[in-house]
Amino acid sequence: MSDLPAPLNPPERLLCGPGPSNIDPRVLEAMRLPMLGHLDPDFHKILEDLIELLKAAYRRSDGFTIALSASGTSGMEAGLASLAEPGETAIVASCGFFGNRMIDIARRHRLNVIELRAPFGQAVPNDQIVEALADHPEARLVAVVHAETSTGVAHPLEQLGEAMRGSDALLLADCVTSLGGMPLEAEGWGVDYCYSCSQKCLGAPPGISPVSLSERAMERIRARTQPVPFSFDFEQLARYWVGRPAVYHHTTPNTQYYALYEGLRLALEEGLEARWARHAEAGAHLQAGLADRGYRLLADPEVQLAQLSAVCVPEGVDGKDVQMRLLREHSIEVGGGLGPDAPDIWRIGMMGTNAHTETADRLLEAFDAVLESPREGVSAGRA
Amino acid sequence: MSDLPAPLNPPERLLCGPGPSNIDPRVLEAMRLPMLGHLDPDFHKILEDLIELLKAAYRRSDGFTIALSASGTSGMEAGLASLAEPGETAIVASCGFFGNRMIDIARRHRLNVIELRAPFGQAVPNDQIVEALADHPEARLVAVVHAETSTGVAHPLEQLGEAMRGSDALLLADCVTSLGGMPLEAEGWGVDYCYSCSQKCLGAPPGISPVSLSERAMERIRARTQPVPFSFDFEQLARYWVGRPAVYHHTTPNTQYYALYEGLRLALEEGLEARWARHAEAGAHLQAGLADRGYRLLADPEVQLAQLSAVCVPEGVDGKDVQMRLLREHSIEVGGGLGPDAPDIWRIGMMGTNAHTETADRLLEAFDAVLESPREGVSAGRA
Repeated sequence: MSDLPAPLNPPERLLCGPGPSNIDPRVLEAMRLPMLGHLDPDFHKILEDLIELLKAAYRRSDGFTIALSASGTSGMEAGLASLAEPGETAIVASCGFFGNRMIDIARRHRLNVIELRAPFGQAVPNDQIVEALADHPEARLVAVVHAETSTGVAHPLEQLGEAMRGSDALLLADCVTSLGGMPLEAEGWGVDYCYSCSQKCLGAPPGISPVSLSERAMERIRARTQPVPFSFDFEQLARYWVGRPAVYHHTTPNTQYYALYEGLRLALEEGLEARWARHAEAGAHLQAGLADRGYRLLADPEVQLAQLSAVCVPEGVDGKDVQMRLLREHSIEVGGGLGPDAPDIWRIGMMGTNAHTETADRLLEAFDAVLESPREGVSAGRA
Repeated sequence: MSDLPAPLNPPERLLCGPGPSNIDPRVLEAMRLPMLGHLDPDFHKILEDLIELLKAAYRRSDGFTIALSASGTSGMEAGLASLAEPGETAIVASCGFFGNRMIDIARRHRLNVIELRAPFGQAVPNDQIVEALADHPEARLVAVVHAETSTGVAHPLEQLGEAMRGSDALLLADCVTSLGGMPLEAEGWGVDYCYSCSQKCLGAPPGISPVSLSERAMERIRARTQPVPFSFDFEQLARYWVGRPAVYHHTTPNTQYYALYEGLRLALEEGLEARWARHAEAGAHLQAGLADRGYRLLADPEVQLAQLSAVCVPEGVDGKDVQMRLLREHSIEVGGGLGPDAPDIWRIGMMGTNAHTETADRLLEAFDAVLESPREGVSAGRA
């Protein structure tokens, strides 16, 4: 190239979208620690501790819990590709973009997908899932989104696990937006496969996907007759992560693991219950402030997440313009609707280091400033 | 968990294995820059520059060049899964562990694989590949490893590209150990799909995979009738990387992209030719020092890589023990043989910031120290 681009100089942002969230300085600092090789015995000691931290975060004592070297989306794909074989039946409950993505990915891996769908703002009722399971006794897998980032809807996962107890079908849950931000008990609730990300309620940088498999999920994988993509081969991954001597699978993203390690230490120092409560408080504070201002939330209050609020853009307001002004005039990121069929919403995250009532207040003030000083030609009407 | 693990405290290492290499302080510093969201317009400007940096590194002006949010191994899998469809024929030339991995992965994605194999230390002759292509005119894909990290062998890729000119079969090359460390001209040599990693000759942390597709590779992907894994769907990835407005695919590992951006800036500031020459010089210096000491290299001198030397462990020497003593007594990492069938070798990398004659000297001195002061019961005989 003729001229090199300038050194990076990204602006400081308050990240109140659906993730990433801002990163604690301790986590950033961890990424500068000396690099070790992926087969260094001193690195394996770190991985052993990382596994313990992840098991504590997911609340699982057995099975296999690691962080995949990939995005949360790949964590989704690894589970769907691994827990059922081509031609087998999977029941997928979708209440938004990420549920729909599960359906797409399950089909790409040639599963026979039974789709259950809820309208935006609702969860698929557990009764309907249990009924589908009775109608499809051949189903090997039930997949739900614990916290649907596209709509702000929580799925009552504990109750689904309870209702499925004794079933041969495995339970898979998208915990991308739930891990570290709301109650989750992988083992206690009978969730066979959870996947998440590093960059939302855990507050580490994006790039790796904490996943947790039950012992019976691993057994199911070991009994497969058809291959899985190599990147998602949990049997081979286990030979690296817990095999001694460790057997090479791929070169692991060690600085990312350092960051997640420190992010998890921060989360567990705080205590999971305290951290969940902090997210609940920040979300409730934000949602009360939004209600005071006359905004309507997309989700049914019964299933409203605290850490992610989908706010309906009032009629006459240009939602995208408001987003851009928050970014340009206040350096605050909020999200918009996700996907071509999305309702007209803002998506506001109170996650990780940002899950504080003070952050909610700062965001509400910025919203007020933008909506009370409309740009020419843009109405600022409220619902 | 009852007690939190201690804060991370990894030792300083000189990383002279097959990668990762040590990281330049400028690259480490870049990872602490303010996090931006993956849909922030300011972040898209960074990605646009990153694409230009990657195109300059790969020497490709057209097609599609990005960094996948995954390991180099996933870069391999993305190519094999995308460039041919189930049932189609791929010719794979293997001269070691990573060539064998290509065969495994191609089979997992239901390709009809024609295997060509060379003995350890040799490359599969281009004539043999061209012959296989004549015997299998239905072949859609030819796959080779440009720099085989398991044996230190270079494949004459330029000549293969030349020999295949006019063929309908696409050419895929594993450039994990070559990008940034030896001559590579993706477009000029007619390579349709290259994949690499961040942590070897580019000297950034591991975790992402620079890939470069020719325009005809993208056309082949657009014409597919069968789906690819979502994580490796280049059509969808293009909608995010170069679509405007960018369409969400997954949450990108932005700190990793910051690091790669700065790593590529360093590489291009130095100049690719100068960087290749530096790797060549460091490797030649190391190999001369090894020869002086009577060590034998695994690779045929005709195809010996500079940046990776596979050194035969002399009879009577415990190779693993030497590796461990280099690590424990000198804090230097070198690699061993890879895979169950590996010959008894050490693998020494001179990559990225470590590709200097001074590093080679430091390593040779450490080898001398370890082998001249054997531990009890361990012989230090030389070939």
